[in-house]
Amino acid sequence: MAAKTSAGRFFEDYTPGQIITHAVPRTVGTAERALNHMLYPARHALYSSDEFARSCGLRASPLDDMVAFHVVFGKTVPDISLNAVANLGYAGARWLLPVWPGDTLRAVSEVIGVKENSSGTSGVVWVRTRGLNQHDETVLEYVRWVMVRKKDTSAPAPETVIPDLAAAVPADRLVVPEGLDFSRYDFDLAGEPHRRGDYAVGEKIDHVDGVTIEEAEHMLATRLWQNTAKVHFDVSARPDGTRLIYGGHVISMARALSFNGLANAQMVVGLNAGVHANPCVAGDTVRAWSEVLDRAETAAPGVGALRLRLVATRGGPPFELRGEDGKYLPDVLLDLDYWALMPM
Amino acid sequence: MAAKTSAGRFFEDYTPGQIITHAVPRTVGTAERALNHMLYPARHALYSSDEFARSCGLRASPLDDMVAFHVVFGKTVPDISLNAVANLGYAGARWLLPVWPGDTLRAVSEVIGVKENSSGTSGVVWVRTRGLNQHDETVLEYVRWVMVRKKDTSAPAPETVIPDLAAAVPADRLVVPEGLDFSRYDFDLAGEPHRRGDYAVGEKIDHVDGVTIEEAEHMLATRLWQNTAKVHFDVSARPDGTRLIYGGHVISMARALSFNGLANAQMVVGLNAGVHANPCVAGDTVRAWSEVLDRAETAAPGVGALRLRLVATRGGPPFELRGEDGKYLPDVLLDLDYWALMPM
Amino acid sequence: MAAKTSAGRFFEDYTPGQIITHAVPRTVGTAERALNHMLYPARHALYSSDEFARSCGLRASPLDDMVAFHVVFGKTVPDISLNAVANLGYAGARWLLPVWPGDTLRAVSEVIGVKENSSGTSGVVWVRTRGLNQHDETVLEYVRWVMVRKKDTSAPAPETVIPDLAAAVPADRLVVPEGLDFSRYDFDLAGEPHRRGDYAVGEKIDHVDGVTIEEAEHMLATRLWQNTAKVHFDVSARPDGTRLIYGGHVISMARALSFNGLANAQMVVGLNAGVHANPCVAGDTVRAWSEVLDRAETAAPGVGALRLRLVATRGGPPFELRGEDGKYLPDVLLDLDYWALMPM
Repeated sequence: MAAKTSAGRFFEDYTPGQIITHAVPRTVGTAERALNHMLYPARHALYSSDEFARSCGLRASPLDDMVAFHVVFGKTVPDISLNAVANLGYAGARWLLPVWPGDTLRAVSEVIGVKENSSGTSGVVWVRTRGLNQHDETVLEYVRWVMVRKKDTSAPAPETVIPDLAAAVPADRLVVPEGLDFSRYDFDLAGEPHRRGDYAVGEKIDHVDGVTIEEAEHMLATRLWQNTAKVHFDVSARPDGTRLIYGGHVISMARALSFNGLANAQMVVGLNAGVHANPCVAGDTVRAWSEVLDRAETAAPGVGALRLRLVATRGGPPFELRGEDGKYLPDVLLDLDYWALMPM
Repeated sequence: MAAKTSAGRFFEDYTPGQIITHAVPRTVGTAERALNHMLYPARHALYSSDEFARSCGLRASPLDDMVAFHVVFGKTVPDISLNAVANLGYAGARWLLPVWPGDTLRAVSEVIGVKENSSGTSGVVWVRTRGLNQHDETVLEYVRWVMVRKKDTSAPAPETVIPDLAAAVPADRLVVPEGLDFSRYDFDLAGEPHRRGDYAVGEKIDHVDGVTIEEAEHMLATRLWQNTAKVHFDVSARPDGTRLIYGGHVISMARALSFNGLANAQMVVGLNAGVHANPCVAGDTVRAWSEVLDRAETAAPGVGALRLRLVATRGGPPFELRGEDGKYLPDVLLDLDYWALMPM
Repeated sequence: MAAKTSAGRFFEDYTPGQIITHAVPRTVGTAERALNHMLYPARHALYSSDEFARSCGLRASPLDDMVAFHVVFGKTVPDISLNAVANLGYAGARWLLPVWPGDTLRAVSEVIGVKENSSGTSGVVWVRTRGLNQHDETVLEYVRWVMVRKKDTSAPAPETVIPDLAAAVPADRLVVPEGLDFSRYDFDLAGEPHRRGDYAVGEKIDHVDGVTIEEAEHMLATRLWQNTAKVHFDVSARPDGTRLIYGGHVISMARALSFNGLANAQMVVGLNAGVHANPCVAGDTVRAWSEVLDRAETAAPGVGALRLRLVATRGGPPFELRGEDGKYLPDVLLDLDYWALMPM
């Protein structure tokens, strides 16, 4: 009669090359689309209207890209971050196939790096996670690294393996969904007239709107993605009695707010880097600004790509990111670097 | 490199005859039905059960009429009421076609009136809005008027145009959904035995129940309808730090509460007038009472119509509407005048 | 012109043998699945993935068993518990058929017992409730008893009828869904390796996690099941201004938390007894522990059954249930005794 509950993996439980099959596959449907609208001020037309998606060459409106990410990410939490001290970053994320209503998602991770900290009490683990659909096709992949506690601090340090991660997904490795065609794109229905060519590298956009976050809302969202990390739900999990908001909630909130100025940045196809700069808690009013980092073309008709920095803050003036010491300012919540597809 | 975000239209941006195509079409499904049940104590059988709807001659349970209204209304907010000082009223609303799961809704408005205020800093704008489905059929229409700020107070006043609005939709202009038949209506499953003939003009009904509103709930609802007006979401948008509750949230709450006493007032087909008498904020306990204003027949088998005043309050005794000065009492939130279809 | 609202039934309105047809049938769909995930940390694979359900011999993922119970229960509230002083218990619940997306549920109850209290001001009413689908097949049944006020305290006491209720549903009366087959069960995807045989009678499991409950969440859930009892929604309904949380919300929360240690206790097929030991209010952090009460076999391939006690608490150490006086400890919220199907 063994213990039935799992305490999660500790640093010494990870080995480069190890494959982890995450539990609890999930069938998604049109409800997840409606719930994304309920939880975030999401207005990108391709994810709101089947008709608009069809006019862009898709068979229906797919699941919002960040929702697909959250569903896959949620599955990894019990295996990767239950004993995580910190969620250090993301890199190399690519969306490879749309997720359609009725698809069933599951997740598999490979450990691609480990490095024990000098303290000997914790270490950094890098994993490459893939989300798969019911046809065993990879719908998205990303690398994430976390700091994880050791259970047995006397366990010997493993050989250090640090993966070679590119600073950004090169534009020619972005995958455009099959059939996507922006040559008859309806800018009136999409909400803004701006084409990819209207954005200049270095341009910054203040997305103006703000949303004050309530406890119930972030918990509903985080649970919906089956992310059950206790710091998000249990006031007794942290000494100060606050519930930390799942970083992905801030990502989706900021992405939705960015509609005002980036209504045509329809599909997220790559995520180059992402840092949760400071914790977010209920009562914070989340705002967002963007900076254009790069522009690219694709082979699909009328479809260009824009590389964007998306910053979420809880106040303070827009466009300020780091202090003189090079550290993120205390009101910066998120610094995300991603590629979006946009009409040329 | 033009500014990418929109500051919304100001009073001087509206001209009678102007047509505004609102952005972000939205496909609705059975999730919106479930969410309407989650957000409001909605129990009308025709909107709860496909089987019940079929027994009334419809092919399935349609989208709740007020949800259809909210979805259309939400689309107009960025174009009509972003700079609105006040939402002054509704009139002449008719529901023309049921909205079925899978339908995609969009909205178009025509400016039908403008009148600058004597102060010269704002004016009243009247618009007639139509909601359309993917077949370009109008599913509902309504007139709304709002007070909007001028951006340039030195801009000349436009010629005043005030639309001629009827005090009520005449009963013979109400549209009964094709096939609707209440001749085999199941009063037991619907929840109450009262037919249209059981209601007398002048009769008043106290709907008894109350719901105390939470911030998270009204924000979830308002976002679900893709209404992104900042006063509903951002505590810094108003000097007193309160978030105003979307008036439509109060409408749906009161309509759902009216089930207790009006369980058979199944379908809303006309809205004659509507006033948000006082602002509603989280913590208010919403109650409702109704008054029978008129009765009518229709050509459909067993289908009659009842004209009802629906009043939402946040306390105080029922059936009191205005003070001796003729103004709405401070606890009155909503005064709505609508037509519902009911078994004869 | 009769009163249009109902004040609910009082003790003297119930007679053994009486049949009550509950109102407002409800069509359920895949949205209810997503909402169950949003409202509770639900992770049982059979209710998350159509593919997993198919690998277990079912045609799709059915509606969560407790959600089916809540939908049926909600329909009975206006007829059974509107004037209830206390919800005394459940017994003899069996799930007889899966509920599939698209099914329409309704509820019928039979009064099977009455006993006036010695005070003469109230009495106990026992009802057997059945939930039916659109084919008039019973999908679940249960017995519930409540204490109900008399309206007319001078009304004579009825003849006492106390139903003969078994202490538990015998294992051979449990109904296994047609086609269910756990012989190729995927323990990796389900999340834990433990088979029915790995659990010993008397074994206790602390499910570790906790969820702090917000007002908005329990109201959204309770409304979703169309349960409109005012104590859950209206701060003025009780002298102390608190809203009582629907007991079923605590059941679903505890069942979801029990995934950690009972991930393979997939389907709830019987409920032997259930007591809401103490009221739960917003701000409580709900935790759960289980005790294995019995084990059984079934005729279906690879399918065994486990009888479990599921206890929800709001703090305090696990595994403590009653004080020296035999009464439930003040932090115990729920004491539930149920049968679940599990791979052998």
